[in-house]
Amino acid sequence: MLTDKATGDTAREIWQDVARPAADRAADLLARMTLEEKVAQLGSAWVASSPNPGAEVAPHQYEFAESTIDWAKLVQHGLGQLTRPYGTAPVEPVEGAQWLRRRQAEIVEASRFGIPALVHEECLVGFMTWRATVFPTPLAWGATFDPALIELMATHIGATMRSAGVHQGLAPVLDVVRDPRWGRTEETVGEDPYLVATVGSAYVRGLQQAGIIATLKHFAAYSASRAGRNFGPVAVGPRELADVLLPPFELALREGAGSVMHSYAEIDGVPAAADVRLLTGLLRDELGFTGTVVADYFGVSFLQTLHGVAADPAAAAALALAAGVDVELPATRCYGEPLLDAVRSGAISETLIDRAADRVLRQKIDLGLLDRLDPPTAVDFDPAASRDLARRVAEESVVLLANDGTLPLRAAKIALVGPYADDVAAMLGCYSFAAHHGLQADPGVDVPTLRTALPAELPAATFTDDIADADVCVAVVGDTSGLFGRGTTGEGCDVEDLSLPGDQDRFLSELLDIGTPVVLVLLTGRPYALGAYADRCAAIVQAFLPGEEGASAVAGVLSGRVNPSGRLPIGIPRGPGGQPAAYLGPRLAHRTGVSSVDPTPLYAFGHGLAYTSFSWSDVTPAEPTELAADETITVSLTVTNDGDRPGAEIVQLYLHDPVAQVTRPVQRLVGYARVPLDAGRSTRVSFRFHPDLAAFTGLDGRRIVEPGDLELRLAASSTDLRATIPLHLTGPERVVGHDRVMVADVTLGVR
Amino acid sequence: MLTDKATGDTAREIWQDVARPAADRAADLLARMTLEEKVAQLGSAWVASSPNPGAEVAPHQYEFAESTIDWAKLVQHGLGQLTRPYGTAPVEPVEGAQWLRRRQAEIVEASRFGIPALVHEECLVGFMTWRATVFPTPLAWGATFDPALIELMATHIGATMRSAGVHQGLAPVLDVVRDPRWGRTEETVGEDPYLVATVGSAYVRGLQQAGIIATLKHFAAYSASRAGRNFGPVAVGPRELADVLLPPFELALREGAGSVMHSYAEIDGVPAAADVRLLTGLLRDELGFTGTVVADYFGVSFLQTLHGVAADPAAAAALALAAGVDVELPATRCYGEPLLDAVRSGAISETLIDRAADRVLRQKIDLGLLDRLDPPTAVDFDPAASRDLARRVAEESVVLLANDGTLPLRAAKIALVGPYADDVAAMLGCYSFAAHHGLQADPGVDVPTLRTALPAELPAATFTDDIADADVCVAVVGDTSGLFGRGTTGEGCDVEDLSLPGDQDRFLSELLDIGTPVVLVLLTGRPYALGAYADRCAAIVQAFLPGEEGASAVAGVLSGRVNPSGRLPIGIPRGPGGQPAAYLGPRLAHRTGVSSVDPTPLYAFGHGLAYTSFSWSDVTPAEPTELAADETITVSLTVTNDGDRPGAEIVQLYLHDPVAQVTRPVQRLVGYARVPLDAGRSTRVSFRFHPDLAAFTGLDGRRIVEPGDLELRLAASSTDLRATIPLHLTGPERVVGHDRVMVADVTLGVR
Repeated sequence: MLTDKATGDTAREIWQDVARPAADRAADLLARMTLEEKVAQLGSAWVASSPNPGAEVAPHQYEFAESTIDWAKLVQHGLGQLTRPYGTAPVEPVEGAQWLRRRQAEIVEASRFGIPALVHEECLVGFMTWRATVFPTPLAWGATFDPALIELMATHIGATMRSAGVHQGLAPVLDVVRDPRWGRTEETVGEDPYLVATVGSAYVRGLQQAGIIATLKHFAAYSASRAGRNFGPVAVGPRELADVLLPPFELALREGAGSVMHSYAEIDGVPAAADVRLLTGLLRDELGFTGTVVADYFGVSFLQTLHGVAADPAAAAALALAAGVDVELPATRCYGEPLLDAVRSGAISETLIDRAADRVLRQKIDLGLLDRLDPPTAVDFDPAASRDLARRVAEESVVLLANDGTLPLRAAKIALVGPYADDVAAMLGCYSFAAHHGLQADPGVDVPTLRTALPAELPAATFTDDIADADVCVAVVGDTSGLFGRGTTGEGCDVEDLSLPGDQDRFLSELLDIGTPVVLVLLTGRPYALGAYADRCAAIVQAFLPGEEGASAVAGVLSGRVNPSGRLPIGIPRGPGGQPAAYLGPRLAHRTGVSSVDPTPLYAFGHGLAYTSFSWSDVTPAEPTELAADETITVSLTVTNDGDRPGAEIVQLYLHDPVAQVTRPVQRLVGYARVPLDAGRSTRVSFRFHPDLAAFTGLDGRRIVEPGDLELRLAASSTDLRATIPLHLTGPERVVGHDRVMVADVTLGVR
Repeated sequence: MLTDKATGDTAREIWQDVARPAADRAADLLARMTLEEKVAQLGSAWVASSPNPGAEVAPHQYEFAESTIDWAKLVQHGLGQLTRPYGTAPVEPVEGAQWLRRRQAEIVEASRFGIPALVHEECLVGFMTWRATVFPTPLAWGATFDPALIELMATHIGATMRSAGVHQGLAPVLDVVRDPRWGRTEETVGEDPYLVATVGSAYVRGLQQAGIIATLKHFAAYSASRAGRNFGPVAVGPRELADVLLPPFELALREGAGSVMHSYAEIDGVPAAADVRLLTGLLRDELGFTGTVVADYFGVSFLQTLHGVAADPAAAAALALAAGVDVELPATRCYGEPLLDAVRSGAISETLIDRAADRVLRQKIDLGLLDRLDPPTAVDFDPAASRDLARRVAEESVVLLANDGTLPLRAAKIALVGPYADDVAAMLGCYSFAAHHGLQADPGVDVPTLRTALPAELPAATFTDDIADADVCVAVVGDTSGLFGRGTTGEGCDVEDLSLPGDQDRFLSELLDIGTPVVLVLLTGRPYALGAYADRCAAIVQAFLPGEEGASAVAGVLSGRVNPSGRLPIGIPRGPGGQPAAYLGPRLAHRTGVSSVDPTPLYAFGHGLAYTSFSWSDVTPAEPTELAADETITVSLTVTNDGDRPGAEIVQLYLHDPVAQVTRPVQRLVGYARVPLDAGRSTRVSFRFHPDLAAFTGLDGRRIVEPGDLELRLAASSTDLRATIPLHLTGPERVVGHDRVMVADVTLGVR
């Protein structure tokens, strides 16, 4: 138990008593705290944040960064959160841990109640610090269609963070891609809400199992900004919000996610950080969330400086606090003196301070921060087990888009070319420490490229620089991820169209003119237009910034050691223009005959080939089936690996709703199963489908299940339908709560 | 008075008595009519509609066109509307009039009450029939910033139609451009709601003064479809709908527009044709509209076939009728037997039939159709006065984007080149008869091109085909407008990006490489990316499909006979991608530092040069001004023509609202004045600004005027601000009704 420095109140045991409920302890603390102490718990400090434009890691950071921080003054009343002790500058693990121990001790010492700061870090592709494992990007997670693996990955990330004295991780990103021109597309799980929901929730489960608070972001609709421009205004109606953009948050909240971060963007004129209907009405009252809402970096200030809905920092603070933003990040700019002034002047009620401080304190109590401060220990942030796991995720995520039989590569004379054949940049997502800080040249961990990985995989092959003389040419194109225009993908690196970055279209076109068969390898953070090349390449392999072991994984696919099993979490377009063109949309979002523009992708959502073939058989039910609107049906099929090597099929279950009271997507994913099978083996795959999975937001704004016809589609991709199962839902229209069944449970059984 | 064929009811005089109010007459008719007769008034017939894919003039027309029509059966109970007797196939005026007289006589004869059909035609760029005057497209109207001229044009259009026995015109298009990739951009007045509202309303005023019912379309938000793909789903929230997309309709309704056409598209899952909140709650109950809502062609059927919100034609009819669609166009598909079945089965109430039939009958009574049927007369559809007016509109609409002094052209050796130097197509909007039917080769009226018009303007110049030898090269690029993929612009001719159509980018690039100074002339239906050329051209002239006298107008600008005075009604982008990027948006819709994409246009909304310069002076009020929130202020300035030739300045008044409860556009147009001035002359220009012009939809959904700071900006374009006038609105927040002052009245006085 920490030293109590409060003076002689006999009731003080309540907040110190670990046996008491957190709510009681927090209430007791609140009753004793001064206004200043409570407000201090809503703030944060970012030490050593960069004041240099061109090196910022948060938007407009240079405007807000302070040259000096008066630490004693900062912590005199306590401190809510400590921002990125490991993620702000390159620091050896041992030094980071030492610094953090010292700072926490000072914070505990300085404040009356001895409450440590909650420490947060970024952790999207791994603990975002120097020398930590860099896992593949979320788009790659989506490509695995393997939530269990992503959950395992997140437990590794969480365990490493926990050992470093970190409490909260600012991940996952649960935004559903609406326009892949957006630079943060790489940070998402893809364009389908069900895939994002299930994979994203698995990440939440894993991270929190390791004792780290997950932060769901960006709440909400951030991905739907105009033309995919970062921070751009969002135009969505309440139905699209509820049916497309919110489901991943809903499912992750049911996993008990501890924190939510608001979106920077406005929806229809109301910035999320100022939106009481969103952050309180929906999130708290409807969805029952009880954790903390944290600001995206400088998001409270932006209400004044970028959105123009507040005249000064005090007004911004009052707006955000009233809306439901509990903690200002990354530093106290509005939630300090300006907020205190607003309370003192009566512009905002102290009860709102109490509401937010209570949430913060309860979270600290739940974490045990008031009872013991596990000291960070210097550890290995890139242990072999994590590296192995990074490779496994990468291997499952590689998508074989096309193959004329050239892959797997035979022993041959190979030319390995392309701007990313030997560039670590294309392995690293924007939220890796190296990409975030522009340190790809010295990423802190070993990041092989194909230049070394491919020869290692193919010891019998010879490598030549003479393309015309080679039997096959492996051409590696890709992205450099970075921040705010310093990359070709990543936060603030949006694009006007989906041409390959830089000069790579010309490179590829000229390469194809040579005539040597080309195996195109894409290491990118978003889909790029490949319509001009698809028929000219011998094979195309897509990986999404696949992490520190990405080269090994891609090389393994090229060699045949790995039988590719990734599936596209987002369609790959034919041409560079015409966006947005998400696969998820009603009939009129697709090819129609009333527009000269055909948005049909070149490779559709869910597409991916393997080196083996799978047959699907014995689908049940075999007949059209009647189903009460609250009855579960089991849909089964037998999958057989007809090939001569082990592989994994991804069975996808789509829902088509032909007639409804509002327009419905032509189809959407409602279930999937990764089915690993040895050569020649079969298994029975079963989905338990509940009509709640067919729910949508009806005309009156309530989520309903409507009686009538439905069609379940078993498919190998969103355009490769293998079987359809007509259902007829009977009974009355039924309203569905937010606690509804959202996942189609899957069972696999060897037959 | 028409022959009464009803049998012996003594009260029959009511509906025949011209002295009785239309409401009484309609009620009397309704009481006597059978269900079949009432339903017949809600239907329509399209004779000779084409069944051929590739020749359709309405979406999916080939699906619905009938090979034979049983005319006697069709009209046995009466007929609501007759569709396009003049606009469906090339017909000489005299023949069209004969045919129509005969058909109307048959309709009158066949039905018990002798009620003629209401005859509608398209009329966006003129009466859409062969041999009728082709005026410039609405984008060109916008470029004139001259509502009075557009009103005059519409009176000419209306008078011609009236003489032909037509009663209703399916124009104007009041959609505000949200993505110029949309093929129907040419049909709009531009990207600013105030400009669309004022110019569009002027058209309504003119057309209805001539006795033709104007049809406001497409209600609502049709222009905001995803990626500008025609019919694509629309994602807008209620605030954007109310503040950006609805104002043109509101102002036009205040002009007494008699009809409204629903949009084909859905908003957030609800197709407009099935949207009772839109077509009844908003349009009728809030906005007070009492005319008829007509279906866009096949729009009722599309509820079943394209939207999937109705299972069959009867359900589609019931949905549309209940929502508030009174008349099915262009033919009775759902509002005939299927609707009768729906009424008989009780699926829909007969009172909804009565509601719609009452509106139809009152409109026919108001038109005098029950009392006298003015027979159509064979007339000249392209009289000299109309042609003169077409030229005047075209002349005022030409926008001089850039000029290094090469224009006006001096006597010189000129090479006139480019794919549209001698192609009438680039003069004709999609809703000209010729473009609609692919008859540009024989448009029915004389349509000169620059090949003839330019030499006529420049008798002293010599024309050469040798570009390298020429003093100056006039390069004409442009669009061919057509339907459903048969053009490069027009309905259903959407694009993936804003590159010049076809091979014209390459043409222009190679032309510029020659080195001869190039005057670039664009005859297009949308803005195209000119960033690659702007610095390389000697001058750039933009005209928007300027009609049958467009060549003369453009040649007049090139020669200097016409001092250009058009201003851009829509920005011209730098690059082809990055759409949508409308100028109208909050700060975060623009260049931000948090996105690598800069949507700033190359030439901004409101931009346009002249051959003379204007100085602006003596702006009043000169000091920051306090204003009660319901008080009017007059803003004045003196404009002087400093040049040596007559010209016209367009003074633009923008509003900037720095802090509001929701995000606001950085600026938006709230007034403008076309100021013609002889050389050396000055005039005082005054705007009466009422704070209602600053109204917006607040957090609670009501339209309000908020106290606080505002800034009025007098500007020569949206980026060329000449003076700012700070205002401070005092008093309480005020709710503004739909009858609010929406126009800043302008007065000009010689000083």
